[in-house]
Amino acid sequence: MVNIKLILRILGFLLIVEGVAMFIALIVSLIYKEPDTSALLQSALICTGIGSAMLVATRKARKELGKREGFIIVTFVWIIFSFFGSLPFVLSGSIPSLTDAFFETMSGFTTTGASILNNIESLPHGILFWRSMTQWLGGMGIIVLSLAILPIFGIGGMQLFSAEVPGPVADKLSPRIQSTAKNLWVIYLLFTVLETVLLWIGGMTLFDAINHSFTTMATGGYSTKQASVAYWPSPFIQYVITVFMIIAGMNFTLSYLFLTGKFKKAIKDEELRYYLLFISGFTLIIFAGLLLTTQLGAEQAFRDSIFQVVTIMTTTGYATVDYLHWTPFLTIVLFAVFFFGGSAGSTGGGLKIMRIVLLLKNSYYELRRLIHPNAIIPVRFNNKPVSEQIINNVLAFFMFYFVIFFGSTVLLMIVVPDLPSAMGAVATSLGNIGPGLGIFGPAGNFSALHPAGKWFLSFLMLLGRLELFTVLVLFSPAFWKK
Amino acid sequence: MVNIKLILRILGFLLIVEGVAMFIALIVSLIYKEPDTSALLQSALICTGIGSAMLVATRKARKELGKREGFIIVTFVWIIFSFFGSLPFVLSGSIPSLTDAFFETMSGFTTTGASILNNIESLPHGILFWRSMTQWLGGMGIIVLSLAILPIFGIGGMQLFSAEVPGPVADKLSPRIQSTAKNLWVIYLLFTVLETVLLWIGGMTLFDAINHSFTTMATGGYSTKQASVAYWPSPFIQYVITVFMIIAGMNFTLSYLFLTGKFKKAIKDEELRYYLLFISGFTLIIFAGLLLTTQLGAEQAFRDSIFQVVTIMTTTGYATVDYLHWTPFLTIVLFAVFFFGGSAGSTGGGLKIMRIVLLLKNSYYELRRLIHPNAIIPVRFNNKPVSEQIINNVLAFFMFYFVIFFGSTVLLMIVVPDLPSAMGAVATSLGNIGPGLGIFGPAGNFSALHPAGKWFLSFLMLLGRLELFTVLVLFSPAFWKK
Repeated sequence: MVNIKLILRILGFLLIVEGVAMFIALIVSLIYKEPDTSALLQSALICTGIGSAMLVATRKARKELGKREGFIIVTFVWIIFSFFGSLPFVLSGSIPSLTDAFFETMSGFTTTGASILNNIESLPHGILFWRSMTQWLGGMGIIVLSLAILPIFGIGGMQLFSAEVPGPVADKLSPRIQSTAKNLWVIYLLFTVLETVLLWIGGMTLFDAINHSFTTMATGGYSTKQASVAYWPSPFIQYVITVFMIIAGMNFTLSYLFLTGKFKKAIKDEELRYYLLFISGFTLIIFAGLLLTTQLGAEQAFRDSIFQVVTIMTTTGYATVDYLHWTPFLTIVLFAVFFFGGSAGSTGGGLKIMRIVLLLKNSYYELRRLIHPNAIIPVRFNNKPVSEQIINNVLAFFMFYFVIFFGSTVLLMIVVPDLPSAMGAVATSLGNIGPGLGIFGPAGNFSALHPAGKWFLSFLMLLGRLELFTVLVLFSPAFWKK
Repeated sequence: MVNIKLILRILGFLLIVEGVAMFIALIVSLIYKEPDTSALLQSALICTGIGSAMLVATRKARKELGKREGFIIVTFVWIIFSFFGSLPFVLSGSIPSLTDAFFETMSGFTTTGASILNNIESLPHGILFWRSMTQWLGGMGIIVLSLAILPIFGIGGMQLFSAEVPGPVADKLSPRIQSTAKNLWVIYLLFTVLETVLLWIGGMTLFDAINHSFTTMATGGYSTKQASVAYWPSPFIQYVITVFMIIAGMNFTLSYLFLTGKFKKAIKDEELRYYLLFISGFTLIIFAGLLLTTQLGAEQAFRDSIFQVVTIMTTTGYATVDYLHWTPFLTIVLFAVFFFGGSAGSTGGGLKIMRIVLLLKNSYYELRRLIHPNAIIPVRFNNKPVSEQIINNVLAFFMFYFVIFFGSTVLLMIVVPDLPSAMGAVATSLGNIGPGLGIFGPAGNFSALHPAGKWFLSFLMLLGRLELFTVLVLFSPAFWKK
């Protein structure tokens, strides 16, 4: 039997956390004295109220948390957060339709950054702040946050951890999960503050600086401007954001190593090296392409290339140019980057660099096996042999990813009858990126999409954010058997 | 050291076989008294002449054939056959450009069926016959043919066999390869004759009937008419071709079982069941879709659906309708079928049903492993456990297939700046199908493609036909090390 009471208890607690976060947005609204105050107050009270009621009703829950409970909580916390998180948008009238508000909020909590808004600047500051905060909260993982808090209930979070932490290698983090989670949050906060200061110095208002730091560190990509980062043509601002996106797409334990002075150890990390290699490689191709096919100066061409490559690779999704206006070849080179994603243990989505490196290595070994079928040489990563089971899992992940990508594109074509737009929408949702191709490019948005399409893409965002398996396992009959 | 002399000797022998096949086309030309006679005669003489010279020059070759020689022969025989096979087209002036002629011939020998011809009916009969024969020869595999003949050189063909036979399970065929290969050829011939008779009865000329039987059994798809099978609106002809395409996409050892009365054993085959299930499923979806979105009668809608699904699933590539005129959703459903392919041990290309079934099963097991990490339950196929090594190989194949698919699409966009057209061209080449999407749809052809694109797609056809690994292994440094 699944321990439903405990699940409800934990979800209730997390709902209170969400409510508290809304109170922070409420403060912003009060500062600006805008009409969104009452909507934020009502939403915060609803969340904390219902959350408290759930806690009271389940106070007798058995404190046994199994793997299955873990999978259920991880999936449902995102769904519940998105439902309640859309209240401020609906109640304030900023996004009157529930479908749109849910899409926007799921896109926030999953750090996707795809939007249905046509006029972002018209929204009150409290609502904009809440929108950015959904990404910041989602970014590092509401669950990693809760790892440091769950023990209040006397429960170890290890089960959740293996289901939640992005990337295939969970044991990279120390087993002292509580303190690790706290360390990571401190780093996360530190980088957010640092970026805020730099963007403020660069000429953004403090409000814009905070919002963009929130959504950079989460690799989310929500902006306070309809034009996204293109609103600020300042090279300084664009380079600062580029650097912080790169940091946010790195494994946070590596940032911890860097910050604690262990440079040598950090720099040896194989995933980091490939991550930087892929960024450099794609930047170089697009840089050369832009020089050949446009009139841009070298600095501008370089900045446009590296910004777009990094924003897509890290699955952030800001825009400084509309890549659909590039020559089709360059657009499609960038579209290939849609499938890479950040590092394991970062806030980025996608396939993830570590998986791609393992796939590449295994492919080469597969060719060697054809020639020397009796030689057994395991794939190595960071100088350690990788088990067959992990390789099989990575290959299965790849297969699921592309079967879901193709299958979803086919389904979406019921409401989006143009292949590039449908492919782009699915790739950007599944990879938690933001902009897509065709009508959903960086200059467009998802407002015109059929409601069924919006719900479907919201589901894909969730699927991608939880690394497919966590959600898919709930659909497997074996999961529900005793 | 690679035994180059023996490789040249075998290639020389096979070149004579190609020359002999050209003499058969020459006979057709003589019957019709058309101006292609001298081109065919010259080509046949060049092939047999050079082939004989190669035999004489290498008569002292050591009779040692290793795995590496096998891989090299399998890849190069297709390249050499396509070069020499394009002579009749070039010398007769039917296809003046070598690029175009090579594309057409590679498309023939790999049983792809993608064409650069704008006016097929204007070609003389001998040339058309040669064009169909490239598919018929390629179909069952020039190498499987040569398996029955290589022993003349005192060489067992097992090494070639494991590299060549389509599908992941080579040992399905009896170890008495020679007699098996002969059996398969007899079946192949039998079905070709049977289909010819039926198409002739249905109203085709004998010439058209033979040509279409050739290209049906090879799952090739070359037609003698620009309009393809749509030229014959006769339901009888279209259903006959559908049935024989289904047979050609089946494992030929199953046909052998059926023909020798072992129905029970054949019908139990898991791949066969899934193959028929996939055909039925996709036919049903498109049938329902056509009824809902068009004015077609039920029989016509059913015939259009099953014909298009079967022609794509088996990677034949005939057309009776232009599926690009369907509602976009149905077009894309059919495009999904581009990635299925025929059964292992058939003449079809693509991923192959057996691989897809193994992938599906392994996926489900992967989910179970997440819940019960300690339970070791191997994937089963035809009631036998499948080794981890085969699963890993199938997963790696899937990965290579999609990485090559995406990478090639990106590259092709240099000369085809429209995503659906580029994707369709790559998918149809890699899957050895024939028509694609956009400008390369069933009503179009590849004549307008940039020459670089034609060479590139020719390479993809080869890669797909030889199941990726056979060709890719030649690019791996490990292959060339002692």
